[in-house]
Amino acid sequence: MRRIVMFNRVSADGCFSAADGGLDWVVPEPALDREAARSLGDADAILFGRRTYEMFESFWPRALDGDSPDAEDPHAPGRRSPELHAMAKWIDDVEKVVFSRTRKEVAWSNSRLLHGIDPAEIEAMKAGPGKDMMIFGSGSVVSELTRHGLIDEYQLVVSPVLLGSGRTLLTEPPAGRELVLAEAKSYPSGNVMLRYLRPE
Amino acid sequence: MRRIVMFNRVSADGCFSAADGGLDWVVPEPALDREAARSLGDADAILFGRRTYEMFESFWPRALDGDSPDAEDPHAPGRRSPELHAMAKWIDDVEKVVFSRTRKEVAWSNSRLLHGIDPAEIEAMKAGPGKDMMIFGSGSVVSELTRHGLIDEYQLVVSPVLLGSGRTLLTEPPAGRELVLAEAKSYPSGNVMLRYLRPE
Repeated sequence: MRRIVMFNRVSADGCFSAADGGLDWVVPEPALDREAARSLGDADAILFGRRTYEMFESFWPRALDGDSPDAEDPHAPGRRSPELHAMAKWIDDVEKVVFSRTRKEVAWSNSRLLHGIDPAEIEAMKAGPGKDMMIFGSGSVVSELTRHGLIDEYQLVVSPVLLGSGRTLLTEPPAGRELVLAEAKSYPSGNVMLRYLRPE
Repeated sequence: MRRIVMFNRVSADGCFSAADGGLDWVVPEPALDREAARSLGDADAILFGRRTYEMFESFWPRALDGDSPDAEDPHAPGRRSPELHAMAKWIDDVEKVVFSRTRKEVAWSNSRLLHGIDPAEIEAMKAGPGKDMMIFGSGSVVSELTRHGLIDEYQLVVSPVLLGSGRTLLTEPPAGRELVLAEAKSYPSGNVMLRYLRPE
């Protein structure tokens, strides 16, 4: 059975996104980037909300181009990061499913547009062939899938910052409240990865 | 210098309080209660918002009474919990400072009423004699003290639950965004204690 795995950054005071929608508050952590690059092989699809898809679409194809400044390691300008390139290549290759009521089409390679979230359709995707499916950002998709109990793992990276205002991760009641803590791991940057599983 | 230490429970999806204000979502953890009981001696005052003060006022004096059902260990009904009794005794003994615009007086032993938060007054309290000052709950007090950079340590216990809706910890921009992670510790119940310090 394919699993749906969500990965998101949150602030210590519980915000999933800042009031201005920006991500400049995220505290970088090279060790996390390396671990993420190593685990990419476990998944072969990404589920997107429209906004996150468009953000990814504007960044990652250029990061794949070795001559682009976007291919530089954001933590070490001028250096080409192997993790960044591996991530860009993986994102380009995998199936990208975009949930949007307003987009008419999607042009990025291996992208597919769905006009809404149909739980039965998601269940069928999970029962079909393939590896895990990832979600990055995409708060509305996370909320709606959680309402139907369809997310199997929540990976929350807590940055050591206070935002004071912003949105929480979910906007709808979850199918079930309880989670099972699988891991709590801290990093030199002060980031903490909290990994939760949906109970069986 | 006395420090101000905040202790609060939050959900995995970043809520400090549920939409209904209730606390039935908090996952209990006896090991945390024992550690809290052991560290009570480091503090000799509590800063309160009105609502949390009134909640404490309605519960803890009765828990101090050994014959009251409230003195029973909530995790083992019928058993008198030494941690609960130590906590009740400590709360009764320490100075309780209540910030409220509407209360006219406070009758609970060692309580003192202040009609608003004056940063200079808080600074003077910190510079005066005594041990650390704790804050439990009291979201509005946490928010306002954070806006003035007056909280020295944030202890957040993340329960392994999704609430889907609720309030985040802060409602105002903090004096500074950055925190220093001091500890990330997980417990058998799936709770995780995240302890942050304000940068020097």
